[in-house]
Amino acid sequence: MPGELVTRFIDAIVANDLDTASSLVSDDIEYDNVPMGKVNGKEAFHSFLGPFLDSALEIEWIIHHQVASGGLGNGVVMNERVDRFKLAGGWMEPPVAGLFVIQDGLITLWRDYFDLATFQTQLANVSS
Amino acid sequence: MPGELVTRFIDAIVANDLDTASSLVSDDIEYDNVPMGKVNGKEAFHSFLGPFLDSALEIEWIIHHQVASGGLGNGVVMNERVDRFKLAGGWMEPPVAGLFVIQDGLITLWRDYFDLATFQTQLANVSS
Repeated sequence: MPGELVTRFIDAIVANDLDTASSLVSDDIEYDNVPMGKVNGKEAFHSFLGPFLDSALEIEWIIHHQVASGGLGNGVVMNERVDRFKLAGGWMEPPVAGLFVIQDGLITLWRDYFDLATFQTQLANVSS
Repeated sequence: MPGELVTRFIDAIVANDLDTASSLVSDDIEYDNVPMGKVNGKEAFHSFLGPFLDSALEIEWIIHHQVASGGLGNGVVMNERVDRFKLAGGWMEPPVAGLFVIQDGLITLWRDYFDLATFQTQLANVSS
């Protein structure tokens, strides 16, 4: 089911296993961090996310709620998360709401809503 | 079902009918605009939202996706929206992701995720 696919996808990201995560997205995935902008395609998804995951000492994403509709052929999942990253100066934990559109068993759209200033302030505080 | 309750709630807000909207929330509703902060209780919900709705010449919220789980006794709804408000200088249309928790047939939590700078910039541009 679509919710389980997204859970597997997030488990892979938290494990910094982008090969597994990439295997769950379509070649033309749209990866949209709304206040930052979007990238398109599996390679761009990998290039955008990889360095940030690599920079983290620990990663822990807490899913507060996740709801889904449809099936693996055509489904929608949304979740409310806290994406925790431990950097040199401590944990950052931006609150995020995410949308995932699934088609033909793959994630074709991942769009995250969050406050960019909150993210940047937290990042600055734990980067040193 | 919870999704229909949220749709009725949003229809009431878009119609600037806060009395109807208020009848669908619990007395102790938590209304949380994540990057701005939260207010608690039906009166605070009404006082926070009312002036902003009153200031709009037209209101149109576009629901791109809405997913729900559970029932009216205990349910969760999330949606992806563009909350369009027409002010003197034109339309603002901030992108938003919302979470609604329903208990005993009423909305007990409404939490919206969005980028505050995007909202403020759009508001400034159409307020004149």
